[in-house]
Amino acid sequence: MAPWGERLAGVRGVLLDISGVLYDSGAGGGTAIAGSVEAVARLKGSRLKVRFCTNESQKSRAELVGQLRRLGFDISEGEVTAPAPAACQILKERGLRPYLLIHDGVRSEFDQIDTSNPNCVVIADAGESFSYQNMNNAFQVLMELENPVLISLGKGRYYKETSGLMLDVGPYMKALEYACGIKAEVVGKPSPEFFKSALQAIGVEAHQLLSM
Amino acid sequence: MAPWGERLAGVRGVLLDISGVLYDSGAGGGTAIAGSVEAVARLKGSRLKVRFCTNESQKSRAELVGQLRRLGFDISEGEVTAPAPAACQILKERGLRPYLLIHDGVRSEFDQIDTSNPNCVVIADAGESFSYQNMNNAFQVLMELENPVLISLGKGRYYKETSGLMLDVGPYMKALEYACGIKAEVVGKPSPEFFKSALQAIGVEAHQLLSM
Repeated sequence: MAPWGERLAGVRGVLLDISGVLYDSGAGGGTAIAGSVEAVARLKGSRLKVRFCTNESQKSRAELVGQLRRLGFDISEGEVTAPAPAACQILKERGLRPYLLIHDGVRSEFDQIDTSNPNCVVIADAGESFSYQNMNNAFQVLMELENPVLISLGKGRYYKETSGLMLDVGPYMKALEYACGIKAEVVGKPSPEFFKSALQAIGVEAHQLLSM
Repeated sequence: MAPWGERLAGVRGVLLDISGVLYDSGAGGGTAIAGSVEAVARLKGSRLKVRFCTNESQKSRAELVGQLRRLGFDISEGEVTAPAPAACQILKERGLRPYLLIHDGVRSEFDQIDTSNPNCVVIADAGESFSYQNMNNAFQVLMELENPVLISLGKGRYYKETSGLMLDVGPYMKALEYACGIKAEVVGKPSPEFFKSALQAIGVEAHQLLSM
């Protein structure tokens, strides 16, 4: 691999992941990963544009940012690209009314969305809300639609909490795909549209970017 | 399609499915499908060998047979081929100690199985027991094994209850496959070994069989 000096030539912006890069989530708000608070501060003090790009879908941006600030990070809500707001934009553009299979912590992001008489399902990292009953509700909504639309906020297999590995949204997305014989639309990483929206927010082109 | 007379020439045995063929499961023991009680009686009164071959994995054979007898069917436990006993035989042969992600109704089939210090996962149609916590327990057991073994009792997508469509074991099998990057071993239909064991029980060859 090329040395850092060469790799940084032409770089104008940095996309930073949050979970597992800045901090490990877990009981009591999780813990900052060693050196990450200082690294963010140095990046933000440099000539580089910085944006936080996360697949976090258990919490609203407000809650996530509050938690990170308590851990010492210099970060504001407007600096975060997250799947829930991106999904809301898609729902509005396409006139979709979702059944929400999501964590209560992220529900506030969908406050402006009509959820009556659902004509699609939005699935996110719902944690304990991935009950059989809720999964079956989502399944039944999809099976009653002529053109079933399943929108998944990310497709991660699992993530690490301080207490151990935890199932992420991806396995549950696969479960509904198999049950209904359909393919989900993924909003969030690794979707190119999601990365593009993060880049647009800081006015940086893809070739000028460092992502970590 | 050939007329019934021709199709039955050389037929010596009949395999009958149970759920969705003899009865629809549901509250209060479900309901017999019209004509099925009489059809079973006529088959058993004929020269044909009859065996019941089911992927039912929410109930023990004893419970299932009790329910069917109450609906009027002439059926005994020894006439039923089901995935749970077939799985128990595999577990014993290979020295496997399962974490059981199953419905309480079928647990008695595993009474003779050592479940201490699990070195595999057995997943069945667990219904409400498909909680996030139980799925995560199964996931963590698999992730800690050098050679993760996941045995699935069937791989059905969904089944019909009197109250509507219900998610079967298949979607949850797919979820764990994706989470762990593994492939499950399916015990039950459509596995050829499972059909063979049903045929052996009535001493009939595959070409002498009618299956419905």
